[in-house]
Amino acid sequence: MFAKEVYVRRRETLLAKMREAGQSGLILFIGNTEAPAQYKDNYYKWRQESCWLYYFGLDEPLMAATLDIDSGAETLYADDVDIDDIIWMGPQPSVRSKADSTGVEHSAPYGAVGNAVALACKSGRAVHFLPPTRYFNTMKLAALLPGAAPSEALIKAVVSMRLIKEDIEIEALDHACDLGIEMHSVARDAIRLGIVEQEIVGKMEGVALAKGWGAAFPTILTQHGETLHNHGHAAIIEPGKLLVVDAGVESNEHYASDFTRTYPTSGKFTTKQREIYQIVYECNELAYSLCKPGITYREVHLATARKMLESLSALGLVHGDLEEMLAAGIAGLFQPHGLGHNMGLDVHDMEDLGENLVGYDPDQTRATQLGLRSLRMARRLCPGHVITDEPGIYFIPALIEKFKKEGLGGNFVNYAKLEGYYDFGGIRLEDDILITPEGARRLGHGRLPISPEDVEAAMAR
Amino acid sequence: MFAKEVYVRRRETLLAKMREAGQSGLILFIGNTEAPAQYKDNYYKWRQESCWLYYFGLDEPLMAATLDIDSGAETLYADDVDIDDIIWMGPQPSVRSKADSTGVEHSAPYGAVGNAVALACKSGRAVHFLPPTRYFNTMKLAALLPGAAPSEALIKAVVSMRLIKEDIEIEALDHACDLGIEMHSVARDAIRLGIVEQEIVGKMEGVALAKGWGAAFPTILTQHGETLHNHGHAAIIEPGKLLVVDAGVESNEHYASDFTRTYPTSGKFTTKQREIYQIVYECNELAYSLCKPGITYREVHLATARKMLESLSALGLVHGDLEEMLAAGIAGLFQPHGLGHNMGLDVHDMEDLGENLVGYDPDQTRATQLGLRSLRMARRLCPGHVITDEPGIYFIPALIEKFKKEGLGGNFVNYAKLEGYYDFGGIRLEDDILITPEGARRLGHGRLPISPEDVEAAMAR
Repeated sequence: MFAKEVYVRRRETLLAKMREAGQSGLILFIGNTEAPAQYKDNYYKWRQESCWLYYFGLDEPLMAATLDIDSGAETLYADDVDIDDIIWMGPQPSVRSKADSTGVEHSAPYGAVGNAVALACKSGRAVHFLPPTRYFNTMKLAALLPGAAPSEALIKAVVSMRLIKEDIEIEALDHACDLGIEMHSVARDAIRLGIVEQEIVGKMEGVALAKGWGAAFPTILTQHGETLHNHGHAAIIEPGKLLVVDAGVESNEHYASDFTRTYPTSGKFTTKQREIYQIVYECNELAYSLCKPGITYREVHLATARKMLESLSALGLVHGDLEEMLAAGIAGLFQPHGLGHNMGLDVHDMEDLGENLVGYDPDQTRATQLGLRSLRMARRLCPGHVITDEPGIYFIPALIEKFKKEGLGGNFVNYAKLEGYYDFGGIRLEDDILITPEGARRLGHGRLPISPEDVEAAMAR
Repeated sequence: MFAKEVYVRRRETLLAKMREAGQSGLILFIGNTEAPAQYKDNYYKWRQESCWLYYFGLDEPLMAATLDIDSGAETLYADDVDIDDIIWMGPQPSVRSKADSTGVEHSAPYGAVGNAVALACKSGRAVHFLPPTRYFNTMKLAALLPGAAPSEALIKAVVSMRLIKEDIEIEALDHACDLGIEMHSVARDAIRLGIVEQEIVGKMEGVALAKGWGAAFPTILTQHGETLHNHGHAAIIEPGKLLVVDAGVESNEHYASDFTRTYPTSGKFTTKQREIYQIVYECNELAYSLCKPGITYREVHLATARKMLESLSALGLVHGDLEEMLAAGIAGLFQPHGLGHNMGLDVHDMEDLGENLVGYDPDQTRATQLGLRSLRMARRLCPGHVITDEPGIYFIPALIEKFKKEGLGGNFVNYAKLEGYYDFGGIRLEDDILITPEGARRLGHGRLPISPEDVEAAMAR
């Protein structure tokens, strides 16, 4: 938890933004409760809701709060513990002292939030709330405000704040990235032919748990990188494959990191692997070199797509006019995802507040083309933006076949040559970038080896 | 997943039991869906619902099934994947082939389960379902069968089956226990003065993730063992403390293990620590020696409570007639929890089916006394029962003060002497036990060091 003043200031800013937007009424925040894994009392690891963390910092289940836009009154709703709780959970600070620790003036039992909301509704006042991220919160909101919709004004105000990271957040992100780099180094050093992928994942996530909250998202570690979100880890590491490792650490302060590296399982790239790797590497570097205030991340995405097609063309996998290929969405056949996303308290920061409200400026419309349509962050870059730079090239047989069958690739795609890549897999290379007033810098101290030479050298050690 | 025949047989047995109990209509099973950690698409690690695993084995989200008690017809409801799913999740077997793999004759889209339930309700047929364990399942059931209550007949039939472990389950439990022993050994070897508790937890859970599904429940690793479910790991390991480590591994087959050991942080017990440790150790051994078919686990709990009071009496912490102390519930002041619980696919097996229906025979009533009332497993032991043996002694200042203030300890408690234990912490020692036709055996190959001598010797290595 940061100092009390941080949360007081953030809530004041939020109320001011709501007033500026002509809003009145109550803002309602519902914190998370424990998430059952098996039966109700066997929980997954506790994780607070991110907006709650941002505005209150209190890292405990079953809390709610109201902020009165008109009067400025703030109330924390939570229950004090009884003797049974003390036996099972130990002595706990009072709700009153918790409210003090985040600078909230009023406190009340958890159940009282229902009365506060009912009273506001009865008086015809608006109750603003954010889209719920968990089933519990959905149920709670449905009970408190049946049929009500989340407040777009509140979403916009929150997004405008969380998008631009404060210095204390950048420090926390640097730390999360340091942990992510440490975790990835453990992964790279653990790669051995003949072991099960899961053994590497266990070592990695052990580091994440020892030093931070844990893995920031389900670790992707797969020799089938062409499956973008492959969460199975039962395969044996085989010679001559490419191993995609996409993983990050959430720090104890709940900030995320998110890195991807792709390793030749045998320690050396084949010529074919290295050709494709080099393209992805150059796209990653190109994106970073373009990042600075003023350019949109959509433009950066398109620049890497152009670079990718140009290089694939040189390999003879596509052919034709570059601009025409871009317009036809041929890049999406090879990289059916966007170049990157916002990162912060969530690894896809604020995703549940609405991808377009988070990642698109009011004057930007989301594309419908495969690849570009999956771009989660398209905005004009500003100092304080934290984004991922993660180009990738994948050979997805089902997608190539679909393009061929439905003519989606026009005359641009060399399907005959692509058949030789059906068992290739995929390559993705990802860093985390902070936009600065001058340009950009990669988060974390140091950088995971990324050039093909450095990767091979690191694996040889 | 076990062989198809296992699931076919289990479902046949379940239907036969329901018919024997005079039931008719449909049995409805709802599998789990992904559980959001931050935003909706950033999930916790996937875990299927345990009864679903038991009867179907299919380890994937968003599935449902109906079993027709009258006709015997079985239907699996799930959706086939489209091209977008293939890009993100890879090629997937068809729902039809998944149904085949568990021997279910009919299959239909996920949404069709709503029609099946509506049709049954319309025809006045009963629809039996189990208590939901997650908020998603609660919402789903509320939508399908508004206001309906879980079926006690179904709960009883399921409990009667899952309570008695089959040979393939015992093998899986032995494996989970082997992994648990390995994880605990890593923990013991990692204890160092001056490190943060979290560093040990990370190493332990890394082993669980590398070799199994992960930790079977949130690891308890604390120098405040007097807090029974202490999940914070931010403390520094300090000299002269007792470190309680209560943790288990869920295997890839989703069977649990659950062990507790208590270590002197400095490697050697103080005299005071060793006196109390010896009592808990003897209670653990006594419970195991008494375990055999025919005795109730309530009797075993009471035998250890008697032993505990006898030994605490010898130390001068309590005094008076042993039977009177037992009757007055004095044991609960020191061990406010039960001796153990059932274990299987869930670490507290089937807890959400109702603790009394799972852990108590029809002729047993649950006690109201502190300690005994928390006994989750009281039944007469049968071959195939898998239970934990986990006596503990804790010095909980808030509880002792409550006893003193409210006179709950009668004249039995030496409060003056107890004041010298306010900073003692707690000790718990737990093994996992299988009831056999002849008696009992501890699960797992080998046993974690437990006698004070063996613990000190293991820590000295």
